[in-house]
Amino acid sequence: MTASRDNDGTPELDLALAAKVLDAQPFSRLLGARLTLFGDGAATIEVDIRPDLHQQNGFLHGGVLSYAADNALTFAGGTVLGAGVLTGGFSIQYLRPAAGRTLIARAQVLHGGRRQAVVRCDLSTVDDEGAEKLCAVAQGTILPVARG
Amino acid sequence: MTASRDNDGTPELDLALAAKVLDAQPFSRLLGARLTLFGDGAATIEVDIRPDLHQQNGFLHGGVLSYAADNALTFAGGTVLGAGVLTGGFSIQYLRPAAGRTLIARAQVLHGGRRQAVVRCDLSTVDDEGAEKLCAVAQGTILPVARG
Amino acid sequence: MTASRDNDGTPELDLALAAKVLDAQPFSRLLGARLTLFGDGAATIEVDIRPDLHQQNGFLHGGVLSYAADNALTFAGGTVLGAGVLTGGFSIQYLRPAAGRTLIARAQVLHGGRRQAVVRCDLSTVDDEGAEKLCAVAQGTILPVARG
Amino acid sequence: MTASRDNDGTPELDLALAAKVLDAQPFSRLLGARLTLFGDGAATIEVDIRPDLHQQNGFLHGGVLSYAADNALTFAGGTVLGAGVLTGGFSIQYLRPAAGRTLIARAQVLHGGRRQAVVRCDLSTVDDEGAEKLCAVAQGTILPVARG
Repeated sequence: MTASRDNDGTPELDLALAAKVLDAQPFSRLLGARLTLFGDGAATIEVDIRPDLHQQNGFLHGGVLSYAADNALTFAGGTVLGAGVLTGGFSIQYLRPAAGRTLIARAQVLHGGRRQAVVRCDLSTVDDEGAEKLCAVAQGTILPVARG
Repeated sequence: MTASRDNDGTPELDLALAAKVLDAQPFSRLLGARLTLFGDGAATIEVDIRPDLHQQNGFLHGGVLSYAADNALTFAGGTVLGAGVLTGGFSIQYLRPAAGRTLIARAQVLHGGRRQAVVRCDLSTVDDEGAEKLCAVAQGTILPVARG
Repeated sequence: MTASRDNDGTPELDLALAAKVLDAQPFSRLLGARLTLFGDGAATIEVDIRPDLHQQNGFLHGGVLSYAADNALTFAGGTVLGAGVLTGGFSIQYLRPAAGRTLIARAQVLHGGRRQAVVRCDLSTVDDEGAEKLCAVAQGTILPVARG
Repeated sequence: MTASRDNDGTPELDLALAAKVLDAQPFSRLLGARLTLFGDGAATIEVDIRPDLHQQNGFLHGGVLSYAADNALTFAGGTVLGAGVLTGGFSIQYLRPAAGRTLIARAQVLHGGRRQAVVRCDLSTVDDEGAEKLCAVAQGTILPVARG
């Protein structure tokens, strides 16, 4: 849903280029998302847990987790399918309320074919001591955008 | 994930109270989300499609769609399970790029038992002429928060 | 996953032909599945609830429900994508224990594009008086098989 | 959906007892399923790939994969929630056509709380030389059955 861009004949992305794609997403800038790993079937997106990303009880809103899952899955798919991809869909399960300093969404392609890539994502929070806690898991399907 | 609040012995919500819960979510305020229907197993959340909610190609970011699905599913679950609920998880499939004036996420409980409510959600965009287009569908599970 | 067949240049199916595809699935014959509706984005599969399809408490096994969801979603996808299709994946939520005379899985395409069809499925049981009870819901993605 | 049984005050299961639960499922016997690992948040179910479990192209039917996912997820949930559990729902994505000698569904609990366990499952086929190939992945939610 998120990583497609113009088909310019150079579908290969590296971390620097892919980070520019993320930065070209106004919604990702609104959330302060960073792409910290991209390549070889994997992508990692990090979001600092600011108060304006909370739900009503002071935890990170589930919608931020689902945003990060969606985007990490899509970028991971882009490492194997090329720059022109869209998210077919995904499933997310929440394990526990998410709190801490930073959300880290790590996505990994399990299989990439011509028609789709199947990708999994682990979403963890990191606290001030650097301790990680798994708070949600996702899996989804990324599709290549048809070329003209 | 989102509609739980303190268990105060009055778990019944109406639209006005539920809208206050939504408004107590900083992330929902950041996105400008509105609760426009709440009751009898149904909940509707609307988000105006501002430029800062876009992805890089000018469409609404998939993460906004997944946020709206998450929240609408949870509020719909709250109409049958009471105020103390959390999102177990959900699945979302994207049908087409989302553009227009407003995103409308309509969730409907299919079955509410003691242990969970199963809820579906249709996500449509409305253009300036009021025409609707279905752009994503979701289904998920809402759980009651354990009472002391 | 299930409705693909040789690409013979005649991808259009009607109920009679599609029923032959189902009958060419040994696993569907083992379960006694019947295709009772096929066309215009919809497909219905029925399975009589025999004792050898039960789980340990006398209800229909969840695996029969997931089989019926998988197959109904795929056949519905085949009505819009043609005969050569495969199941990308699906999500299923269980509402209540399934009992009765017959399981009916009704699938409906929500959107069919070139790259995928998004399909929903309602799974109900029918008792001896003909009363229906919704027992599970599913949604998934069907992909066209690449043509040579 | 599948591993619940009478609440007899001894919800703890070991492999031998859990295998009897599986064997008390007529549908699992029809498919020839075996429970080969059970404990510590994990469960493995194996199914030999017989011709009557095929779809029309000679591959294992997707419905057998979804059956195995459903059941492995549920038994894994039972290792942490006790004997009385039911499947809330799950999502499955197919990676490639499944062929070989045996299907192995390995499920692992990611988090088990009071209200649900979130579980993942890898589904692989093994060929005659013992080589494994990942053919589907699933994740789902298992719920405890309410006690009287």
